[in-house]
Amino acid sequence: MPIIESLLDDDFYKFTMGQVVFSHYRDVPVKFAFRNRTKGIKLADVIQEKDLQKELDYVRTLRFSKSEIHYLRGTDEYGDRMFGESYLQFLSELELPPYILRKVDDNYELEFSGKWSEAMYWEIHALAIINELYFRGLMNQLSQFENDAVYAQGTLRLAEKIKILRQHPDITFSDFGTRRRFSRDWQDYVVKILKQELPEMQFLGTSNTYLAMKYAMLPMGTAAHEMDMGVSGVMHENEDAIRASHNKVLQDWWQQYGEGLSIALTDTYGTDFFFQDMTYEQACNWIGLRQDSGDPFEFVDKTRTFYKGHGLDPQKKLIVFSDGLDIETIVKLADYCRDRIKYTFGWGTNLTNDLGFRALSLIVKLMESNGHGTVKLSDNLAKALGTLEDVEHFKQIFGYTRTTYKEVRY
Amino acid sequence: MPIIESLLDDDFYKFTMGQVVFSHYRDVPVKFAFRNRTKGIKLADVIQEKDLQKELDYVRTLRFSKSEIHYLRGTDEYGDRMFGESYLQFLSELELPPYILRKVDDNYELEFSGKWSEAMYWEIHALAIINELYFRGLMNQLSQFENDAVYAQGTLRLAEKIKILRQHPDITFSDFGTRRRFSRDWQDYVVKILKQELPEMQFLGTSNTYLAMKYAMLPMGTAAHEMDMGVSGVMHENEDAIRASHNKVLQDWWQQYGEGLSIALTDTYGTDFFFQDMTYEQACNWIGLRQDSGDPFEFVDKTRTFYKGHGLDPQKKLIVFSDGLDIETIVKLADYCRDRIKYTFGWGTNLTNDLGFRALSLIVKLMESNGHGTVKLSDNLAKALGTLEDVEHFKQIFGYTRTTYKEVRY
Repeated sequence: MPIIESLLDDDFYKFTMGQVVFSHYRDVPVKFAFRNRTKGIKLADVIQEKDLQKELDYVRTLRFSKSEIHYLRGTDEYGDRMFGESYLQFLSELELPPYILRKVDDNYELEFSGKWSEAMYWEIHALAIINELYFRGLMNQLSQFENDAVYAQGTLRLAEKIKILRQHPDITFSDFGTRRRFSRDWQDYVVKILKQELPEMQFLGTSNTYLAMKYAMLPMGTAAHEMDMGVSGVMHENEDAIRASHNKVLQDWWQQYGEGLSIALTDTYGTDFFFQDMTYEQACNWIGLRQDSGDPFEFVDKTRTFYKGHGLDPQKKLIVFSDGLDIETIVKLADYCRDRIKYTFGWGTNLTNDLGFRALSLIVKLMESNGHGTVKLSDNLAKALGTLEDVEHFKQIFGYTRTTYKEVRY
Repeated sequence: MPIIESLLDDDFYKFTMGQVVFSHYRDVPVKFAFRNRTKGIKLADVIQEKDLQKELDYVRTLRFSKSEIHYLRGTDEYGDRMFGESYLQFLSELELPPYILRKVDDNYELEFSGKWSEAMYWEIHALAIINELYFRGLMNQLSQFENDAVYAQGTLRLAEKIKILRQHPDITFSDFGTRRRFSRDWQDYVVKILKQELPEMQFLGTSNTYLAMKYAMLPMGTAAHEMDMGVSGVMHENEDAIRASHNKVLQDWWQQYGEGLSIALTDTYGTDFFFQDMTYEQACNWIGLRQDSGDPFEFVDKTRTFYKGHGLDPQKKLIVFSDGLDIETIVKLADYCRDRIKYTFGWGTNLTNDLGFRALSLIVKLMESNGHGTVKLSDNLAKALGTLEDVEHFKQIFGYTRTTYKEVRY
């Protein structure tokens, strides 16, 4: 059975971003590239090139089915008929563009070029495929019983998470683990069990659109760094234009979705710049922020200072934490946020890939947009992306002074 | 699906004893009774009487199939054609006698009366059924995921056992866990996995005849207290006869099976008496002894003293330990026995019922033989059986002076 069997087996934010890209930046040429940032792991030692090829080829044969389009059309949790007919029509005809796969030094290089509105749908599928092939390879090296023991470990670790979550009913969270999942079936199992074992008010939903549909849960997701990075290539005439591209994304987003999806990702060019750039009106209107790099406790303090500086009550604003979470960090952050700010968690790798193996840190990121190299700085330079030259240039444009460098766990 | 689906799903010693009983004591009237010796557990709180009835009734409909008889006929590991044709003919026509079931104070009383040669086949089936219904009842009170977590716990505990056994390749053992198994399927899984994961020289076989057949392993077992107890009712004319009945069993056994199955169970009337009663010739001929109660380390010392007293080398004799084993005890005993005596382990409850629940201590024991109350003294008076009066009488007959009383774990 192929790993990806439905184009809905994708993070919901691909569709929320997808519609904005389709409306404003449809034909912008882009290049996405895969990168394995896990030290010491050579993927080609475990994954056969032909297996990878076969899975990627299969994704290109997939189309959105009528029922899948119906599901998206019916999505009204963030605003009535949030997906317009022209975008849905576009999706129903979508075929993913070709990929380029190379084996280099026992690792894989993988590129997806094309129109932004089409190439963007490779990211999650490629990551899910490589993850699953890798862990399948590791499992194949074990005996049948050792396989059973891996799942047993995963089950007991999930049971431990559920136990702790029950002791903290104030903690709400969503599954953000599609891209890093141990396997499709394991993510499916985790989501099914969390839905059965925890109240709906605590396990809010999943970023996986297919699983949200299957288990009648809330599909979760807003925007990724990709939005900022892509638009920086479009508005690239000069440094002011690049700087202005950041707020353009916020404006595009608000215009498309209004309050329903108004959670802003703050760290593309560093959260310090974000707080300078977000206007008073935006600060008032937007529900909250997503924290995806750097020290999350410091982020809480800075966010409170930001809102209070605008005369706004931080306790009415929400932070979505999504950076390398585990249950201990979640509990500590919830304790810290209580009486300070509203909080919820987008729990990825450690939720869907915690069976005893070391998880991989794989990414597929936008590298070029409209002929220009793209940059992500983030609040942790270990997560920065772009050529050295471009990164230094963007630091200067966005007044980035942070020097934090903390190795990424996953 | 019924719990017992084959009359071979029984401990092998039922057949080895069964043939001796068939040859010598076929029509002796006996009564077996079930007893729950687990403190604080009321079985009727968990097991419905009608479910228990249904399972027991189903066992009465079972007959040995041709293939099952072929399997027994072909068993030659302990001596060529160890099962004679008249016994096999008897088995092929066997129908288990009626049972009497009563609910008393939220527990069940269960009796099996009839000819010894027929009633004896109830013991293991009744125990396996009550165990499985009980744990099924507990599992039904849990959610689907909590059920998964129980099996996960069982899998990891089995993995831990295997890990430790691999570190101690000198430790050989067999599965003796049919009567106390969590479920039929779980015992099947445990045996299958142990066979896959451990060398044949380490995991020697299983007492479960059906699983031995299914997995092409050695069926394991010799004799139980039942032999001594049953024959004591037959030789009951006076105290000398009762005392002599103990050696009569050793003689019957040797006559039937010779060296192949010459492992003697020592504790029916206390191991001290056993060592007085076993003759020099028997000590020479018999392969070894089974230790089933009391302090196993002390047993090693006493056994060595016994053999050395007869001028025999203890390092050529074997002890089969079978009393309430867990992996820690097994490792300690192996360490103690090394360079002292040969050793192997018959591992029951903790092997086939270690998934996080407290195991039950259930027994089905011979209560009456030939119209007389039967007695087991054992090396731990917590395991003694019989009326108070009969126990005191037998203590006197067998010169039993031990006062050890240690609560039985399972």
